[in-house]
Amino acid sequence: VVPAARLKPADQPSVRRNNLAVVLRELHEHGPTSRAAIATVTGLNKATVSSLVGELIDRGLARDVGTENQRRLGRPATLVELDGRSVVALGLELNVDFIAALATDLAGRPLFQRSRAVDAAGAPRQRVLKTLISLARQALGAVDGRTVVGISIGVPGLVDVDARSVTFAPNLRWHDVDVGDVLSTALGIDVPVSVDNDANLGALAEYRVGQYLGRRNLVYITGQTGIGGGIIVEGRLLRGSMGFSGEVGHMRMSEDGPPCGCGRRGCWEALVGLKPLLRRTLPHCAEALLADHSTGPEAKVAVVVEHAIAGDPVTLAGLSEHGHWLGVGLATLVNLFNPDVIVLGGFFRELAPWIVPVADETLRLEAIAPGAGGCVLAPSTLGFSASALGGAIHAAERVFDDPSGVPYLVAS
Amino acid sequence: VVPAARLKPADQPSVRRNNLAVVLRELHEHGPTSRAAIATVTGLNKATVSSLVGELIDRGLARDVGTENQRRLGRPATLVELDGRSVVALGLELNVDFIAALATDLAGRPLFQRSRAVDAAGAPRQRVLKTLISLARQALGAVDGRTVVGISIGVPGLVDVDARSVTFAPNLRWHDVDVGDVLSTALGIDVPVSVDNDANLGALAEYRVGQYLGRRNLVYITGQTGIGGGIIVEGRLLRGSMGFSGEVGHMRMSEDGPPCGCGRRGCWEALVGLKPLLRRTLPHCAEALLADHSTGPEAKVAVVVEHAIAGDPVTLAGLSEHGHWLGVGLATLVNLFNPDVIVLGGFFRELAPWIVPVADETLRLEAIAPGAGGCVLAPSTLGFSASALGGAIHAAERVFDDPSGVPYLVAS
Repeated sequence: VVPAARLKPADQPSVRRNNLAVVLRELHEHGPTSRAAIATVTGLNKATVSSLVGELIDRGLARDVGTENQRRLGRPATLVELDGRSVVALGLELNVDFIAALATDLAGRPLFQRSRAVDAAGAPRQRVLKTLISLARQALGAVDGRTVVGISIGVPGLVDVDARSVTFAPNLRWHDVDVGDVLSTALGIDVPVSVDNDANLGALAEYRVGQYLGRRNLVYITGQTGIGGGIIVEGRLLRGSMGFSGEVGHMRMSEDGPPCGCGRRGCWEALVGLKPLLRRTLPHCAEALLADHSTGPEAKVAVVVEHAIAGDPVTLAGLSEHGHWLGVGLATLVNLFNPDVIVLGGFFRELAPWIVPVADETLRLEAIAPGAGGCVLAPSTLGFSASALGGAIHAAERVFDDPSGVPYLVAS
Repeated sequence: VVPAARLKPADQPSVRRNNLAVVLRELHEHGPTSRAAIATVTGLNKATVSSLVGELIDRGLARDVGTENQRRLGRPATLVELDGRSVVALGLELNVDFIAALATDLAGRPLFQRSRAVDAAGAPRQRVLKTLISLARQALGAVDGRTVVGISIGVPGLVDVDARSVTFAPNLRWHDVDVGDVLSTALGIDVPVSVDNDANLGALAEYRVGQYLGRRNLVYITGQTGIGGGIIVEGRLLRGSMGFSGEVGHMRMSEDGPPCGCGRRGCWEALVGLKPLLRRTLPHCAEALLADHSTGPEAKVAVVVEHAIAGDPVTLAGLSEHGHWLGVGLATLVNLFNPDVIVLGGFFRELAPWIVPVADETLRLEAIAPGAGGCVLAPSTLGFSASALGGAIHAAERVFDDPSGVPYLVAS
């Protein structure tokens, strides 16, 4: 992952990269503007700004768009704005029952969107990877002629971001799968491919384009087969030293709790994951549903929703208990992170009408800070494949952090 | 708290403030340098740099220090370096059994250091605050004639950083005490006074000057009467939306655990705080020790250490159990933050030889990431009053973030 441009000056080339990023972000956030205005706002000298803008234009990231008419004195200034139409960022999501792809340009305009059903836990790993590669090829084919600046793949599990490999994904039954290398090699293009935890990318999507966009301390929790978490701290994704942060599913909640897929007991996932959900809310058919690998979590949760809408008292009591345990775990997250908002994705979102009120009440009782430190608890508005969207955003951010990674346009 | 200077440009005055901070940090981190070199490194134009350096000199933050002789061409350049000898940052720590003060100049050189015993939980709050004010006055008297740039006070509890008040400090039995306003008013000087969680300031001290300084993801856990936590994420203190982050003591660890001082059950503090420590390791005298308010945690823990050194089997078994529960909670922190290092302060540090090996083994078994995600577990080398040191560092950082907050020197 390209580190964000920092204030701290270092050597000259890195200073130029940082300044290039400053100018690009200025164009992104404030729209068309003159070079002189950029110089004024950034404190960079005019010659430097002109040179930086020239480089951005040469890389297809900026373009001239006519003149500013309001000026009373001197020559009219040419305005420059964010371009990036020639740039593609591709987000991929590999989940237990589907693979999704979303390609956007630098400004986030969608260029391609598609998903395919898979049985990622049941099918041989090679076949799953083949489907992923095929969908990626399809996406790249659809945007042919543009510059692909990055591909980011979300996977539900521990991801070694540096090695671009899935260290451990219990619900896919994957250990040490080098997804990044496999995809890079198969695609055969010189584009940064990154692999990330799916909930991390979901959190990024919530932070950038969700209902609570811009809340600088945001926790995203998703219920799929297991429980994923992505945490935004002061506007940046929390990664930790090796990218293994946000493993909320394995917070220890109970001394002698139910067994967890990770081999331990009393993990939060063993209390609020798909399995305990189905056992609590549909005790008569939970085992049959869990044994059926032909349907994914979304279809199984739909059965719960059906029963809840029909007013099944067992289902409703189960949802209330589920909401309680959700709230208990959220209280620990509030104690540690003091977030502005917790956004619930995946099946928590589908079940929001029944579990959020209980979870919210429990959270407020259990968190040490009065009023849960001002935390709002809300279902996601982005839907089940927020991670692919987050992947595209992540791949594009690479450019805003370091525009010098985008190759120069070649006259065609 | 003054927010850090950000890359994102905004209005002109804030750009100048940011650039002033860039130049000051350049001087701080890279030593004596010429104005021309600063212009080259930062990309700012020379006239801007000269004006910024002039402002820093006028504020007593920089000074000219002779000429650079290596230059072959042109006039020799005057070198400029960090000054800040006229600047004082004051850190205060209010704890259950002592109040400490540490004043430094901008470069971190100690100017005054003192601590006083108090019974903060037993004595009337007004008397405790009076002692705090008196110690602060003594510190300020000792550095008279210098510019005090900030005072930061560490308190063991939930702190509303914006309101500068202690929202809830269970072990001091304080609710809604506006420590910042009280101190500001009593001192009657126009200096920013901030109040912070003591473990937050301890974490900052570990990050800046501890054995693991510079590890960008660092968790600091301190055992006093309760358990405090301060968390550094990517080189910055995690604060959350209201400053209530890092409340590690109230992570829920057990469904029917022992009662906690916060009124709940099964909190981590109820498993690894001072009370369970004494009950486990000194079952015959724990209640007597706990009832004795004339000695603080440090003296009580010294009794445990004595018994451990003497090889008391009950004490050793108790320490092993304590280490186990320490490790279980640390695993949740590793799952969430994936830190480079966890530094143990307070009584955990005193007990390190007996509890760290067990805690480390448990942590490695319980954390979901292989090898605990590379996390090192180590006792602090800074000692019991790391928070006062962190307070001084915090107060000084305000200047590095925004030098324009330092008043101009007046010719005397």
